[in-house]
Amino acid sequence: MRYELYYWPDIQGRGEYVRLALEEAGADYVDVARSDRGMSAMMKMMEARSGTPPFAPPFLKAGRLVIGQTANILLYLGSHHGLAPKSEAGRLWVHQLQLTVADFVLEIHDTHHPLGPSLYYEGQRQPAKKRTEEFWNERVPKYLGYFAGVLTSNGGTYLTGRRVSYADLSLFQIVEGLRYATPKRMEAFEPEIPGLVDLHDRVAARPNIKAYLSSDRRIPFNEEGIFRHYKELDI
Amino acid sequence: MRYELYYWPDIQGRGEYVRLALEEAGADYVDVARSDRGMSAMMKMMEARSGTPPFAPPFLKAGRLVIGQTANILLYLGSHHGLAPKSEAGRLWVHQLQLTVADFVLEIHDTHHPLGPSLYYEGQRQPAKKRTEEFWNERVPKYLGYFAGVLTSNGGTYLTGRRVSYADLSLFQIVEGLRYATPKRMEAFEPEIPGLVDLHDRVAARPNIKAYLSSDRRIPFNEEGIFRHYKELDI
Repeated sequence: MRYELYYWPDIQGRGEYVRLALEEAGADYVDVARSDRGMSAMMKMMEARSGTPPFAPPFLKAGRLVIGQTANILLYLGSHHGLAPKSEAGRLWVHQLQLTVADFVLEIHDTHHPLGPSLYYEGQRQPAKKRTEEFWNERVPKYLGYFAGVLTSNGGTYLTGRRVSYADLSLFQIVEGLRYATPKRMEAFEPEIPGLVDLHDRVAARPNIKAYLSSDRRIPFNEEGIFRHYKELDI
Repeated sequence: MRYELYYWPDIQGRGEYVRLALEEAGADYVDVARSDRGMSAMMKMMEARSGTPPFAPPFLKAGRLVIGQTANILLYLGSHHGLAPKSEAGRLWVHQLQLTVADFVLEIHDTHHPLGPSLYYEGQRQPAKKRTEEFWNERVPKYLGYFAGVLTSNGGTYLTGRRVSYADLSLFQIVEGLRYATPKRMEAFEPEIPGLVDLHDRVAARPNIKAYLSSDRRIPFNEEGIFRHYKELDI
């Protein structure tokens, strides 16, 4: 079965957590909106009046299923491609970690869009500065400290032990993204989380991920995505 | 098995989506932090270094499992108490809807905390006004319009058909909460979503929910929770 991934064609965004899982799994998939007429195919799926219409991209067509919400797609891929434990307890635990990643991603987005997702950044520069300050003072230490603790208490290789899960792939992306968006702040913070930096490197070195990152399937970071580099926010 | 729910004792907050599911299911549970020494028991669980420590409340102890993240707890309760379809497709669909509710809940919270969750409302009144305006102009029509469309295309009784799911219980709470937080805005908006108002009433009339809402287990809304009534935001 060839999966169809539907996501905005010009950004990593939330679609990237799904792309990383598909790539790690060596799954057969097409990134629909990046192909000819792909965007109109995506919009058509979103306007569907029946079935299981998604609220927003990303969504994944898997045979007859259409699955929306990033963490939900990963829940599905995790159980079909060995990217999560098989037991109910293990599945719920990895999903719990992923939902915490999702909360963090939303807070990352809000650093540059504190007044709401439908307004331009340029109209909310001052509140963005305040929110970014708060984010680095309070939220980054809390979230990344939490994940670092989980990693340590499970042996330090991957979040849940010796096998990689989709949550590890997502944490790789978090480290990578924060380095892009706010390199100075991240460089100053990384000594607090050596285990997560190792995890990042371990994921980046996995053969399928390594091949993906150096391919043109990996869209470069840019200022339309979740992780945006605005100099005035990186002090 | 008696479930143990761990959540802040003085607010509905995110714990309420779990309480509604436990109540609808007629499940045996104790709301731990509301009992004597419950808060210290909760803090102790959160500081756990091993097992599956939650990032934040709510979390549910179900026998030997400790499950964190609201939507993840509902995923578990849904499959153990008939509050979601049994098929993989049905389970994923209800979970997808719940994750969309979770995104909406976070945006609701951000209306009064646009500069971040660790600062007081009083320090962010002006940005809160802007974000609330944006929220009602753009986000409420988008989210509630989406759920109203799903409801209609599935027959109009419950989101996924004739059987109630945990996502229906959560939508009840959304309508109830918006009515509390911004009664004027909500009164003006409700004619746009008659189906969701009916769904709210249908859930409220279910025997277990009705009994719960009139019990002292239901904590009243207040200005510490997700839904807060600030007059200046309700114009």
